[in-house]
Amino acid sequence: MRGVIMYGPGDVRVVDRESPTILEPTDAVIKLAATCICGSDLWPYRGAEPVDHAPMGHEYAGVVTEIGSAVTTVAVGDFVVGSFWASDNTCEICQAGYQSYCVHRVLMGTIGTQAEYARVPLADGTLVATPGHPDADLLPSLLAASDVLGTGWFAAVAAEAGPGKTVAVVGDGAVGLLGILAARQLGAQRIIAMSRHADRQELARRFGATDIVQERGDDGVAMVKELTDGLGAHSVIEAVGTQESMQQAIRATRPGGHTGFVGVAHGVALDGLELFGAGIHLHGGAAPVRRFLPDLLRLIWDRTIDPGAVFDLTLPLEDAAEGYRAMHERRATKVLLTL
Amino acid sequence: MRGVIMYGPGDVRVVDRESPTILEPTDAVIKLAATCICGSDLWPYRGAEPVDHAPMGHEYAGVVTEIGSAVTTVAVGDFVVGSFWASDNTCEICQAGYQSYCVHRVLMGTIGTQAEYARVPLADGTLVATPGHPDADLLPSLLAASDVLGTGWFAAVAAEAGPGKTVAVVGDGAVGLLGILAARQLGAQRIIAMSRHADRQELARRFGATDIVQERGDDGVAMVKELTDGLGAHSVIEAVGTQESMQQAIRATRPGGHTGFVGVAHGVALDGLELFGAGIHLHGGAAPVRRFLPDLLRLIWDRTIDPGAVFDLTLPLEDAAEGYRAMHERRATKVLLTL
Repeated sequence: MRGVIMYGPGDVRVVDRESPTILEPTDAVIKLAATCICGSDLWPYRGAEPVDHAPMGHEYAGVVTEIGSAVTTVAVGDFVVGSFWASDNTCEICQAGYQSYCVHRVLMGTIGTQAEYARVPLADGTLVATPGHPDADLLPSLLAASDVLGTGWFAAVAAEAGPGKTVAVVGDGAVGLLGILAARQLGAQRIIAMSRHADRQELARRFGATDIVQERGDDGVAMVKELTDGLGAHSVIEAVGTQESMQQAIRATRPGGHTGFVGVAHGVALDGLELFGAGIHLHGGAAPVRRFLPDLLRLIWDRTIDPGAVFDLTLPLEDAAEGYRAMHERRATKVLLTL
Repeated sequence: MRGVIMYGPGDVRVVDRESPTILEPTDAVIKLAATCICGSDLWPYRGAEPVDHAPMGHEYAGVVTEIGSAVTTVAVGDFVVGSFWASDNTCEICQAGYQSYCVHRVLMGTIGTQAEYARVPLADGTLVATPGHPDADLLPSLLAASDVLGTGWFAAVAAEAGPGKTVAVVGDGAVGLLGILAARQLGAQRIIAMSRHADRQELARRFGATDIVQERGDDGVAMVKELTDGLGAHSVIEAVGTQESMQQAIRATRPGGHTGFVGVAHGVALDGLELFGAGIHLHGGAAPVRRFLPDLLRLIWDRTIDPGAVFDLTLPLEDAAEGYRAMHERRATKVLLTL
């Protein structure tokens, strides 16, 4: 089969890879209906994380082609979506809603779903079947559920977005934008998108943003405070992962408020005394997408939400290298790869 | 009046200070019934915080001797207890339960309650009267409510201690010990005290600890994991404020669990990627004691709890310097100063 390998920073190639097979009785193999490139794939692409001939991709949706002998909840022919962390969904951590920290978790990124087929470990705990095979226009949204929607949703939940709340969102990539969509669905009263890109501001408004703040860093914090009687937002979503974005998020949160962070931290060190002085709730990490997946798939299936709108460039899998370049150069927010 | 002044690190003196008067219509003046030394007073004593001729003390209980013209909820002659942060208790932050971050807050430590009298700003929002003048044996517990009990209680609430939960407590000072008492009152199933001092272990058990872990740092974390099926505690209270104690607390918390931190951070930097990887909830800072004060006073008045047991040395105010030395040298956990 064909699949994406990152040979090194900036060096993405589509090559022949061995087709996956069932290795464990709990495995399934799926034929991808489409796949995509994640903002987090840019960290190794940009040399901010080590990478050496790594299979790429951790988002996936497609049709089950084979199942292991122990798999009971999905069948060959089912259309399924799964989380970027495979999980058993039965351990104590999963049962508490933290499937991304499952005691048996497997990172799908190590398997590489930017490919024609993928092996999904712990299929019963990881995959959720849709009611049927989706119309083509639903495919981008279903694929988004696998990570960026689930991650933005978790960030909004971690930030306790809800009725009566003012939510600020740091980061206008796919996850930040879908954090806006999530905050809206969760009933937030006011949603402040922090963005300086016109196209992303437009999508932010479409997803539910009520205010746009262009300033960054402490200037951005000052603007959020100005919009919130000097207090800061009740809920702040952090969807970048840098020192500046984390500080901006924490400082924009009012005392007693909630910061939900999902940007994979790179070079971030939080000052303990500043955190003590802030009096906020801080929660985040790898999103337990599996917790939200059944609800998210229903909202997509019913056409209540359209998270697939974050894809602004579609390319064939064979052109993955161009997709990476486009995202790296910010010519695209998120790239869908067709098969 | 007589009062404690810290001239510099290690140099505590009891001197004549000007008696306080009403400065604002919202002020009250109280005659202290007793006062005490806080573990946090040791930071400047040890040179870890700058100090220069500073009035000391922020814990207080006593009788109102004078009120400003705007004060309505306490009267001259009332016995009152207040938080170490004065607060209006009406602003949006106070109403959300974060009185220690009140938009009009005043730190009682800048006033100095290790003295015969103290001015209490924002008296209506800060002070809570007891049902009558207390019996002498209740005085230590009422004084403890002003900070160490309220702070330990907040830490337990921030860590979401409750029924079915395993709670670990990092720090065996007065706040950590009272965090144990709070976790017990909140219904925690299992409480692991991390302590290597026999006398503090004994008090920990009396307050409700079910297990003692002597190891510190990552060895201590390994012990907590051993006691919790390898997962870590649901709830961890951090009551020290050092890099080691914060790391110990975060690492002892299971994914999705809650770390409540109340140790004033000194030289703490939290690694963003470790925090991302941990998947915990982190909440803490200056405890909003006022939120809990009415309930705590009731529990003390009814003799349901006995937080005053943390005082293991009682000295006259005039001997405050010896009290500081005793706490600095760990000969005492907490020192009560009589007047």
